[in-house]
Amino acid sequence: MSPKITTELLKQLRQVMKSPRYVQEPIQAYIVPSGDAHQSEYIAPCDCRRAFISGFDGSAGTAIVTEQHAAMWTDGRYFLQAAQQMDSNWTLMKMGLKDTPTQEDWLVSVLPEGSKVGVDPFIIPADQWKRMSKALRSAGHDLVPVKENLIDTIWTDCPQRPCKPLITLDLSYTGVSWRDKIVALRSKMAERKVMWFVVTALDEVAWLFNLRGSDVEYNPVFFAYAVIGMNTIRLFIDGDRMMDPAVREHLQLDSTLEPEFRIQVMPYGSILSELQAVGAGLSPKEKVWLSDKASYALTEAIPKAYRYLTPYTPICIAKAVKNTAETEGMRRAHIKDAVALCELFNWLEKEVPKGTVTEIVAADKAEEFRSQQKDFVELSFATISSTGPNGAIIHYKPVPETNRTLSVNEIYLLDSGAQYKDGTTDVTRTMHFGTPSAYEKECFTYVLKGHIAVSAAIFPNGTKGHLLDSFARSALWDCGLDYLHGTGHGVGSFLNVHEGPCGISYKTFADEPLEAGMIVSDEPGYYEDGSFGIRIENVVLVIPAETKYNFKNRGSLTFEPLTLVPIQTKMIDVNLLTEKECNWVNEYHQKCREVVGAELERQGRHEALGWLLRETEPLARVQ
Amino acid sequence: MSPKITTELLKQLRQVMKSPRYVQEPIQAYIVPSGDAHQSEYIAPCDCRRAFISGFDGSAGTAIVTEQHAAMWTDGRYFLQAAQQMDSNWTLMKMGLKDTPTQEDWLVSVLPEGSKVGVDPFIIPADQWKRMSKALRSAGHDLVPVKENLIDTIWTDCPQRPCKPLITLDLSYTGVSWRDKIVALRSKMAERKVMWFVVTALDEVAWLFNLRGSDVEYNPVFFAYAVIGMNTIRLFIDGDRMMDPAVREHLQLDSTLEPEFRIQVMPYGSILSELQAVGAGLSPKEKVWLSDKASYALTEAIPKAYRYLTPYTPICIAKAVKNTAETEGMRRAHIKDAVALCELFNWLEKEVPKGTVTEIVAADKAEEFRSQQKDFVELSFATISSTGPNGAIIHYKPVPETNRTLSVNEIYLLDSGAQYKDGTTDVTRTMHFGTPSAYEKECFTYVLKGHIAVSAAIFPNGTKGHLLDSFARSALWDCGLDYLHGTGHGVGSFLNVHEGPCGISYKTFADEPLEAGMIVSDEPGYYEDGSFGIRIENVVLVIPAETKYNFKNRGSLTFEPLTLVPIQTKMIDVNLLTEKECNWVNEYHQKCREVVGAELERQGRHEALGWLLRETEPLARVQ
Repeated sequence: MSPKITTELLKQLRQVMKSPRYVQEPIQAYIVPSGDAHQSEYIAPCDCRRAFISGFDGSAGTAIVTEQHAAMWTDGRYFLQAAQQMDSNWTLMKMGLKDTPTQEDWLVSVLPEGSKVGVDPFIIPADQWKRMSKALRSAGHDLVPVKENLIDTIWTDCPQRPCKPLITLDLSYTGVSWRDKIVALRSKMAERKVMWFVVTALDEVAWLFNLRGSDVEYNPVFFAYAVIGMNTIRLFIDGDRMMDPAVREHLQLDSTLEPEFRIQVMPYGSILSELQAVGAGLSPKEKVWLSDKASYALTEAIPKAYRYLTPYTPICIAKAVKNTAETEGMRRAHIKDAVALCELFNWLEKEVPKGTVTEIVAADKAEEFRSQQKDFVELSFATISSTGPNGAIIHYKPVPETNRTLSVNEIYLLDSGAQYKDGTTDVTRTMHFGTPSAYEKECFTYVLKGHIAVSAAIFPNGTKGHLLDSFARSALWDCGLDYLHGTGHGVGSFLNVHEGPCGISYKTFADEPLEAGMIVSDEPGYYEDGSFGIRIENVVLVIPAETKYNFKNRGSLTFEPLTLVPIQTKMIDVNLLTEKECNWVNEYHQKCREVVGAELERQGRHEALGWLLRETEPLARVQ
Repeated sequence: MSPKITTELLKQLRQVMKSPRYVQEPIQAYIVPSGDAHQSEYIAPCDCRRAFISGFDGSAGTAIVTEQHAAMWTDGRYFLQAAQQMDSNWTLMKMGLKDTPTQEDWLVSVLPEGSKVGVDPFIIPADQWKRMSKALRSAGHDLVPVKENLIDTIWTDCPQRPCKPLITLDLSYTGVSWRDKIVALRSKMAERKVMWFVVTALDEVAWLFNLRGSDVEYNPVFFAYAVIGMNTIRLFIDGDRMMDPAVREHLQLDSTLEPEFRIQVMPYGSILSELQAVGAGLSPKEKVWLSDKASYALTEAIPKAYRYLTPYTPICIAKAVKNTAETEGMRRAHIKDAVALCELFNWLEKEVPKGTVTEIVAADKAEEFRSQQKDFVELSFATISSTGPNGAIIHYKPVPETNRTLSVNEIYLLDSGAQYKDGTTDVTRTMHFGTPSAYEKECFTYVLKGHIAVSAAIFPNGTKGHLLDSFARSALWDCGLDYLHGTGHGVGSFLNVHEGPCGISYKTFADEPLEAGMIVSDEPGYYEDGSFGIRIENVVLVIPAETKYNFKNRGSLTFEPLTLVPIQTKMIDVNLLTEKECNWVNEYHQKCREVVGAELERQGRHEALGWLLRETEPLARVQ
């Protein structure tokens, strides 16, 4: 992978940073955040401004360009990738390392006195604006909103904003109608005494209306905002997709509904002016509820005294707790996904020794097998198909320049998933198609022990996920090892593969307590730069746990793996496992046999079934 | 224990809340925080205003009195105690439980529109003021400073503020002179570009000047503030204690020193006016560093633009990392403390069956044995001597009304510690002097497993203590059990038994990363209301750990127990321990034998030595 040459682009950007056509006064620094106007993690090509200006296209990163410097903040998953994709104009700021300055501290250290720092107010979340603005102000600088996005001004061949058709989901998939979701939302609004709720996150709009789209690759969402009042529903969306009879029927746009369920459809671009009108018309005590991650531009549309900001919206929290229709859908999706992966691994086992399977070929083959399954829609993220040293690049995506051939001498790591109409999958398996070294097995086994420690953990109702993170690391820590990423993230139901408000991470973000019905990933790993990567990931469902006692009647929770794909026993050093861990693996494999085996049988995939049976032979511990 | 009758007092308080003599306008609520003007946890009798008004005298709690209500917020350690000590005028607000409102939310729910909420600005920390003031303002109320403390106006027999002689500590105890501490502090100030540092916490003043006092029971501190400039040192302290020749010599008050080390001694009460003068004389860019927990009154003395607030001061952080002189002192103190406890437990074993030993007698005996040890100063906190159901009151202190007789039928929990000139101790042991039930042993063993899981944990340099908290709970959680307090707190070196900035707790407070030289407690427990309490507590030193590998050259840490008191093997269900845990207990007991045994021998305490040897027989696991 050769880095993007950005000298000319940076020169152009620095010119517009001083141009009276775009800025009232010249700005000395310009911030290019990662997200779009909805603070999405995955974004449409037209929103990939940070990748355009820097070359670094990982899913997380913030660029700041000053007159003299260009710097990129990203986290441990992307240190290697960012270093490879950016040219020497850029300084990589490794977040999470002790000596790395924050963006604010760095700006203060490089800026001349009384500088102006610009940012697109639609792209920066309000909470970030507040923090950064305060830090800059206290050092004598100013954070200023720049209405026209400066990257867009120099991005001559910027693609158009997508506007693709919508998918409607009926009750068999969602379990709850959009009307009932609106009713539940309004009751949460009434509890908090707010009159309006502004839906800014794309997956929240999609979930609320039981609609899906394909405006953003991998995330079945569409560009839209919604503003819900106690008696009104406004949906801001562009294009002729609202002309689709199925959508009109689904939203009952042509029916005579009670007024409070009538949806007013408005242009996507009118959200700011409509919200300003709402803000201007508020009576005292009428509050407007927004996420504190909504854009600064929209947040500012509501006068400060009328804002009610929370880190997580009621939709985000409701969406995280899956109902029976959703968990049953997730189960079905994971069985189909396991069928596809059994086919893939069986195929790889035969083909890899021939030396013709590259990372890209393997990724394509995985997609091919998945696409044969019922209700397959698309992948849920860019497949991480990585062998040998590429496996150490935590969010690696094979491209022709880096594409490596799988061999019997290197570890292969596949982190992949799909969107099915009934659910979203995300699974990582680490395989060896020859004979792994004792050291590779040792590391794999520590990661497995961490995976089991989380998956089998029993914990009280109300426990936050971050309290479980160290369980995943303990076996690695004992030997001086670790991994530089969180252990798990929330997973949507035919929605974003990463979603809040729960997760399992050492970063003490304000995660919401885990409760039965939530779905998260469990994915510890171990990575040696230049050598190999190991990760074992299941998607797991939070379920009630039976315990011997029940302190304060709080009840306990544990996890049930939804992912049912064999964990390669060849990679396990059985002697490092406790009896309990060994039993966990055997019971897990027994379940894979029963559940996925039956589906392979039903689909007549006998060769893959044979592979599954071979791979799920019970482990025997040497006493 | 009968509750304090507070009807009359509350009536008086509600009168002064409306009296123009004390308040400009009537206030509808008055907040009585726990701390003193230094935000101390342990406070002098004259500062026990919350206990005076409510009867509840636990170490943590905030009272709020409105015209109609009186409510007390406290945490899980004190639920039972507070319920017993308060009369029916008071509502107990159990912090940490899901349905308990915050103080702000509760105020908003009970106050009439446009209310004024008063608080003593010297008692409320600035960060709390800010949070509460903002929440109240956004609901249409006002937080107002009430200069005269309203509790003091109705507290007719309020004791005087203590002003006891000082103790000077030489280099053999402190390892670093006060001059060198000032130099180090000024270098931290220069790094952050601040010109002044205000020392408000009593233990920080004591540590900085290598002085100790006895103004507050259990904490060897004295009432004082300090203001350190780049060239000046001002110490605000009352009484004739600065006339003591030893103190004058120690502080070199009569020597011809370089000006930057000359200490100006000023009256304690002049801090506010002096600080206001400093604030008024600042040039642009001259910042003043304060803890964000400093009182609102002192914080307000510095204009906002000139304040530099941090959650932890550089003194707090430097104080937490003990140097060799301090750790060696702590080791000595813990050996002496173990000698005293071996004597105590040997004595209890003989006396308890006679039925004459009450909780108070046992506590007094523990103090008697401790006081026989060299450099003993006082206890480090009120001894928790509790048997049977009293053990479930987490911070129980025996008083005549509750005093229970130890017996061979109940579990006895002793949480106690002392101040020695060379170190501070804090140890909990749970004993049975008869035959424990299988259930008691089972619970004890889960607590022990948690204790060992933390004590033997290996974790990367830079790990924060809260990431270790779940290790202490895992064995309990597996059976549906838990305990409602944190697992550990920082411990001072002949200073406060509870100190920041490190700790081990599920509450994700902004704890600083653990580093070698820090000292914390490891004290999981299990409590059954009305039945028994179990806790196993050691004070442990953070030390470097040797590991097989060394990821990213970060290095690893682990703990070394400083406490060396046998853990009663009679209470252990050996079959619930893993081989590793069993070995840990045996190695720990071997160390107790060697180190404490030698000291018992040296002190000629042969009977206690016999007890130690019996109690430290190796465990044998049934395979």
